Amino acid sequence: MLIRMSTLFLRTLREDPVDAEVASHKLLVRAGYIRRAAPGIYTWLPLGLRVLGKIEQIVREEMAAAGAQEVHFPALLPREPYELTNRWTEYGPNLFRLQDRKQADYLLAPTHEEMFTLLVKDLYSSYKDLPVTLYQIQTKYRDEARPRAGLLRGREFIMKDAYSFDIDDEGLNASYLAQRDAYERIFARLGLDYVIVTATSGAMGGSRSEEFLSPTAIGEDTFVRSPGGFAANVEAVTTHAPAPLPFEDAPASRVVDTPDTPTIDSLVERLNEIAPREDRAWHASDTLKNVVFALTGVGGERELLVVGVPGDREVDVKRLEAAVSPAEVEPAGDADFAKHPELVRGYIGPQAIGRAQTGNEDGIRYLVDPRIVSGTSWVTGANVAGKHVVGLVAGRDFTPDGTIEAAEVRAGDPSPDGSGPLELARGIEIGHIFQLGRKYADALGLKVLDANGKQQVVTMGSYGIGVSRALAALAENFHDDKGLAWPAHIAPADVHIVATGKDPAVFEAAGALANELSEEGVEVLYDDRPKVSPGVKFADAELLGVPLIVVVGRGLAGGTIEIRSRSGDFRDEVPVAEIAQRVRDEVRSRN
Amino acid sequence: MLIRMSTLFLRTLREDPVDAEVASHKLLVRAGYIRRAAPGIYTWLPLGLRVLGKIEQIVREEMAAAGAQEVHFPALLPREPYELTNRWTEYGPNLFRLQDRKQADYLLAPTHEEMFTLLVKDLYSSYKDLPVTLYQIQTKYRDEARPRAGLLRGREFIMKDAYSFDIDDEGLNASYLAQRDAYERIFARLGLDYVIVTATSGAMGGSRSEEFLSPTAIGEDTFVRSPGGFAANVEAVTTHAPAPLPFEDAPASRVVDTPDTPTIDSLVERLNEIAPREDRAWHASDTLKNVVFALTGVGGERELLVVGVPGDREVDVKRLEAAVSPAEVEPAGDADFAKHPELVRGYIGPQAIGRAQTGNEDGIRYLVDPRIVSGTSWVTGANVAGKHVVGLVAGRDFTPDGTIEAAEVRAGDPSPDGSGPLELARGIEIGHIFQLGRKYADALGLKVLDANGKQQVVTMGSYGIGVSRALAALAENFHDDKGLAWPAHIAPADVHIVATGKDPAVFEAAGALANELSEEGVEVLYDDRPKVSPGVKFADAELLGVPLIVVVGRGLAGGTIEIRSRSGDFRDEVPVAEIAQRVRDEVRSRN
Repeated sequence: MLIRMSTLFLRTLREDPVDAEVASHKLLVRAGYIRRAAPGIYTWLPLGLRVLGKIEQIVREEMAAAGAQEVHFPALLPREPYELTNRWTEYGPNLFRLQDRKQADYLLAPTHEEMFTLLVKDLYSSYKDLPVTLYQIQTKYRDEARPRAGLLRGREFIMKDAYSFDIDDEGLNASYLAQRDAYERIFARLGLDYVIVTATSGAMGGSRSEEFLSPTAIGEDTFVRSPGGFAANVEAVTTHAPAPLPFEDAPASRVVDTPDTPTIDSLVERLNEIAPREDRAWHASDTLKNVVFALTGVGGERELLVVGVPGDREVDVKRLEAAVSPAEVEPAGDADFAKHPELVRGYIGPQAIGRAQTGNEDGIRYLVDPRIVSGTSWVTGANVAGKHVVGLVAGRDFTPDGTIEAAEVRAGDPSPDGSGPLELARGIEIGHIFQLGRKYADALGLKVLDANGKQQVVTMGSYGIGVSRALAALAENFHDDKGLAWPAHIAPADVHIVATGKDPAVFEAAGALANELSEEGVEVLYDDRPKVSPGVKFADAELLGVPLIVVVGRGLAGGTIEIRSRSGDFRDEVPVAEIAQRVRDEVRSRN
Repeated sequence: MLIRMSTLFLRTLREDPVDAEVASHKLLVRAGYIRRAAPGIYTWLPLGLRVLGKIEQIVREEMAAAGAQEVHFPALLPREPYELTNRWTEYGPNLFRLQDRKQADYLLAPTHEEMFTLLVKDLYSSYKDLPVTLYQIQTKYRDEARPRAGLLRGREFIMKDAYSFDIDDEGLNASYLAQRDAYERIFARLGLDYVIVTATSGAMGGSRSEEFLSPTAIGEDTFVRSPGGFAANVEAVTTHAPAPLPFEDAPASRVVDTPDTPTIDSLVERLNEIAPREDRAWHASDTLKNVVFALTGVGGERELLVVGVPGDREVDVKRLEAAVSPAEVEPAGDADFAKHPELVRGYIGPQAIGRAQTGNEDGIRYLVDPRIVSGTSWVTGANVAGKHVVGLVAGRDFTPDGTIEAAEVRAGDPSPDGSGPLELARGIEIGHIFQLGRKYADALGLKVLDANGKQQVVTMGSYGIGVSRALAALAENFHDDKGLAWPAHIAPADVHIVATGKDPAVFEAAGALANELSEEGVEVLYDDRPKVSPGVKFADAELLGVPLIVVVGRGLAGGTIEIRSRSGDFRDEVPVAEIAQRVRDEVRSRN
């Protein structure tokens, strides 16, 4: 393959696009790999399409190696199957909906669980047909509220989605592990660092669930890991709950005047003035903060939820959302407080709220952080403006409706599995595998006859890779301040040959080398532009990011050609007669 | 590549799908290549996806050989560019429209002229950048009123669309011919018979325009061809107009009573009774039939058009539509006639209609078939119920507003280029190439600096292949009553090995052969299903259509294996030791 830059449909840009914040977005646009067509919607230009194709090829090979079979579903789908699983509604504004000329409802599929399930139902009827794992590489649509970061969070994007179908949990586990292994091979072949973290399954339901994250500071996902090897999506971190304490000897609670203490800090300062403790000063972690949220359920029903957390921690809204999914979360507003005078802003206490305590089954729910176990004693609001309660004991003075994982996770928190203190990091979600179980098979009636002739609901696994996102993650991982620096397996070419100056002998030698190598199967990008300065050509080579750069120029008169790696590993002058072999050797060593 | 039918995601069907009328639709569904997801929307199953991939690969190779560069546009596009070219409106109900969460208008692209034009505008600015030809293989959406025939007329389908960009007409011609040559190579490699016909460019505007049709009786498109090599879409046939006649000596017209002659036949019969001619009997071709249509323009404006054709021909609505495109056509209704009492149903004559004759610039237009030249004499309506006029002479007694190509084309009509009588045939449109010219570049402001530093509007060519439709056309061309019979280049496998019976030795030998061949790069579909009867396996092999079938069964005990072609060319018993070599030879001779 030989691409000549004199005719390649490409214009590199010296300036970052104004809407770009992250390196992959800036560089992929500047290097002419992609181009924005609408918010979160991109056009692939020739070089971008080449890289994308290489990623897809690796995915296909590993899917085939794992026994998965490729199919391809439409993107435009009728409403009915998504109605049966309630996702037509559940997806809310994230779903692109439309009507055809007969006013029938359609959607642009954000995922294809329903279609895979119905297809297997359509073709298969016996346990002997199972297991089967199907996949596709396909364009997905999600009407993101805030498309951002170029390919990292788009509204039209490319996914590999696979589903496994098994008769029992043992089969599901085997199918799951086969995909998990394939994912490890795929990301390794892509040259993409990854961390496998335990994940909540979010809106999908199900049991075992793991995400493949590419660690990077600009990642949207926060995850934790411990020295002992625990790793989890922050939404999936469970809090180490202390053992309950006896409270027989605990002093009775008492109300203290605390006017003008709108924050936890000001409350703690006041307490240390007006009610100092003997053994140690009051600390934010002694207080119990109660935060009011409004949840909107799938059917549009709205309810208030009070979340109690130790006062030294914030509520992490993403963790809260994961905990109450698919309901949507917003802070309670003035109207909510107006309807509930028992919620005294800034002084909310647990004594009189919650369904258990009020006996009102339709009342406000009160859920607390798992650290708030029976026998722990708290400073909290007295449900009266300007007053707090000291020494309010859980299990004696108040009883929450349950616990919830909504408090922020902090570096140094103990790992749930006891493997040491957690550290926090950020990453890009590039893959997600999880055991869907029987949710979709139940909803859509996918059953097969088992060995005893009985109908059994099939159990499913779901396995996704963000293909276009993986490309962006690679760009995040492999770039410097001059441009992209692709790993060899997915670079748009093996070698970038640059002819500099105006000497026809240079272009002749460079052209001959380009021809010779490309005829042998080396993928050559040849900068043969006649009137472009060496400086611009070098800058473009750095920006485009082909791993091997060959410069035919001044050295030619002295019988040498320069070869260097984009990553800066080496830069050598090689005799003309040896350059082709050196390129071959370098390409072979990288592939 | 080795596909084992014991695990292949496939169920063949013995019954035709109830909604299928044409062979490709029936067989592709029965053989498990595709599956209907919604009207005109299909899912690709593993074997279908393999064939599709092979077709796409051939298209890509020939596009690259023709110097076209691959890009990929989104399917979901904003309204604005299509507004600038008026196609947001022009497409009418054929366009899938939707809104995003911010109520911004989007569409699912039916074609991408606007996007290609804007992309080139975005990147290029000089004549030195040209020529360039870009293409994509992409999913298109068209909300067909009557999706039918499976993949032949779908609502979500796959197209290769290419656009060339040139500074001048000479360049456009060269780009056009390069694509034309590529199309010839593509269809030849696909093994698909095709006819290149001159075409109207329909709603697209432009100059040179040719369609590639795959001839088949079930095709939607009618085309004509002559012994001398003329070939055209029926919409593009121009009528051979006779030379004008002198009319100085023509007798004056006279009105005759013709009550109860609602049809041309009854009129001719009456004339021969009441006003016989000396030299020959009256014939339908002596009459001038005037038919009233209502046209609806792009902006929704409605106007009446009267079309005059010789009475022995019908108006061909498809030709009329092509002639007045993008306006839409329907027969005039009662309300139209009520508004225009001058149009006397069944007795409409040209004497008092048409803008030229009435002098009313906003009046009803009157256009006639090109055969109605000055000096020709006609029997036609007298604009009075029950009366006709005999001897009405064009150019003397009436003057139409112009001519229109709307009369039906009939076998035996003279070819427009004088190359003999036309024959009519039907075909499937598999490709369309045409010179768009400057329509889109003008509308979207695509200009480049020419050699003199002046801004020049770029001229474009448009080149489409219906990729999924080509697959269906291949199925139409290559099947028999037992199933599909693919050409070797695009078959889902090179060889279909069938193991019959229950003898483990059979499965061992067949499996070894399958392994040996697939390891050498032969694509093997191996029917290793343990409990399926030979009859079912043979029927499936015929249905699936792999060109080479190897049967390992009863003969094995005698040391032979059967090899036969799906097309029935040969059926041989080959010694076991020679079978692998024979398969290799056959595969090599076919590829």
